[in-house]
Amino acid sequence: MPAPVLLPPTSYDYVTVHKVQGTTITAASDILAAEEPLEIRLGFGPTGQREHRTLAITMRTPGHDFELAAGFLLTEGIISRRQELHGILYCPDVEKVEERENVVRAELASTVPVALPRLERHFYTSSSCGVCGKTSIEAVQAAACPVLPTDGPYVAAELLHQLPERLRAQQELFEQTGGLHAAALFSPEGELLLLREDVGRHNALDKVIGAALLQEWLPLHQHVLLVSGRVSFELVQKAAVAGIAVLAAVGAPSSLAVQAAHNFGLTVCGFLRQGRYNVYSHPWRIVGAATAGL
Amino acid sequence: MPAPVLLPPTSYDYVTVHKVQGTTITAASDILAAEEPLEIRLGFGPTGQREHRTLAITMRTPGHDFELAAGFLLTEGIISRRQELHGILYCPDVEKVEERENVVRAELASTVPVALPRLERHFYTSSSCGVCGKTSIEAVQAAACPVLPTDGPYVAAELLHQLPERLRAQQELFEQTGGLHAAALFSPEGELLLLREDVGRHNALDKVIGAALLQEWLPLHQHVLLVSGRVSFELVQKAAVAGIAVLAAVGAPSSLAVQAAHNFGLTVCGFLRQGRYNVYSHPWRIVGAATAGL
Repeated sequence: MPAPVLLPPTSYDYVTVHKVQGTTITAASDILAAEEPLEIRLGFGPTGQREHRTLAITMRTPGHDFELAAGFLLTEGIISRRQELHGILYCPDVEKVEERENVVRAELASTVPVALPRLERHFYTSSSCGVCGKTSIEAVQAAACPVLPTDGPYVAAELLHQLPERLRAQQELFEQTGGLHAAALFSPEGELLLLREDVGRHNALDKVIGAALLQEWLPLHQHVLLVSGRVSFELVQKAAVAGIAVLAAVGAPSSLAVQAAHNFGLTVCGFLRQGRYNVYSHPWRIVGAATAGL
Repeated sequence: MPAPVLLPPTSYDYVTVHKVQGTTITAASDILAAEEPLEIRLGFGPTGQREHRTLAITMRTPGHDFELAAGFLLTEGIISRRQELHGILYCPDVEKVEERENVVRAELASTVPVALPRLERHFYTSSSCGVCGKTSIEAVQAAACPVLPTDGPYVAAELLHQLPERLRAQQELFEQTGGLHAAALFSPEGELLLLREDVGRHNALDKVIGAALLQEWLPLHQHVLLVSGRVSFELVQKAAVAGIAVLAAVGAPSSLAVQAAHNFGLTVCGFLRQGRYNVYSHPWRIVGAATAGL
């Protein structure tokens, strides 16, 4: 059991993982950074005719939500100084109880000119419907997400250790710049089939999936996806839509990524480095290793 | 001079940097990953009545753009199979020449049901206007971006080496999860004033800036910002809006981030680790070090 954390309990989640070291697998408890959507609403207009509308939905770690909303309003040019912001609160009138701490409303001074028609085009919104993790997952599941196979693929536990080195050997642009995310598709035997790099991790994955789509490889049930960084909800969602059943990452997954992977039937491995990794969901696909304490 | 790269020339940029090792500064050439906006348009409707509209704008590394568009269409649920995509091309009819390779149009089969009213709310779009880096930078400059000071702040070259360790010592949630970005505000003397963590790097920065805004610290002309990861255009834009003149990062900047920093008058330092870092823009703020070959 990891040491207790002195942080808001909404900022992290405890999960059970299977730790693979060499070819030995042991069950353990682990802590993940929480990821949940935050909807930022604007309250505006003269007193007596107050209106509100959604400005943006961002996937964030809960905590300091009012600061996040205030910073977003400033850095995206909605307000230019503290005095234009009358207050920020969690919306009391959201539809679902579980969304209550995922919707904030910023009250602007009635003098702030809000160019409303421009907002919709110019701000980040999430591709997920709803503003709690549960709703997001349900929305993706409902949106014709392909069913992942329940009879494989089976991947040798020791094979995964070798994939980051194979990725790195081919990652030419990262080698030169040190500034890119990579996503790569491997065969179940560990052959690197496709590699794409991008400053955006979601773009690197979309490039890999798009290349596979254009070559009519979908669904990618028999492939292993490796990403160079961390695993967000969005990456799990994109992988699942392409039919990918095994997602391995050099970095850590978020809590919502793991929860989504559980629901979608996707195997997520993280911290794939130095002869170790953790399996966060559907560990039955990782086989051929000695197990201890399972 | 770094080794030549066998990659599409639009995927990277050569820049001149100032390399700081210990307290010695030398000029050198370096390669950065390119970052440019890509606008994805949809062509749809029955033959003879074809229309198009913008689906999304994403900040990406140029290269494999058609794959990126195809993957995005699939993973965001616009299409569900290869046959629904008739073709993808660079739009020949964009307004500005420099935008020509930053706008793609995907032609969908006329049978694909596109729920257009939902798109605007549900997809990532960029907060930057225009779809070439140059236009994005001009848009941010035009949008009442505070003028950064030209008479400081001056930061001791050796001070920056110490900041990552001070950040890490306070980064409690990362320590536990390994899965978070951090942004921190330091005084010019290196005192850590504010630290925020998030699964999204832009959120971590918005939280820091929002906290500073609510405490009426803006503009943050005298502070040093440190981020744990890489520096995208978006981070430079947000920092500049808050009046931050020195942005240091443990990771690498993108080409567009450096170009924007040049224009905004912001000092960007990257690869801040193991007693070294690179200064990519406005190195005159980094002082007190021995210089070689400058």
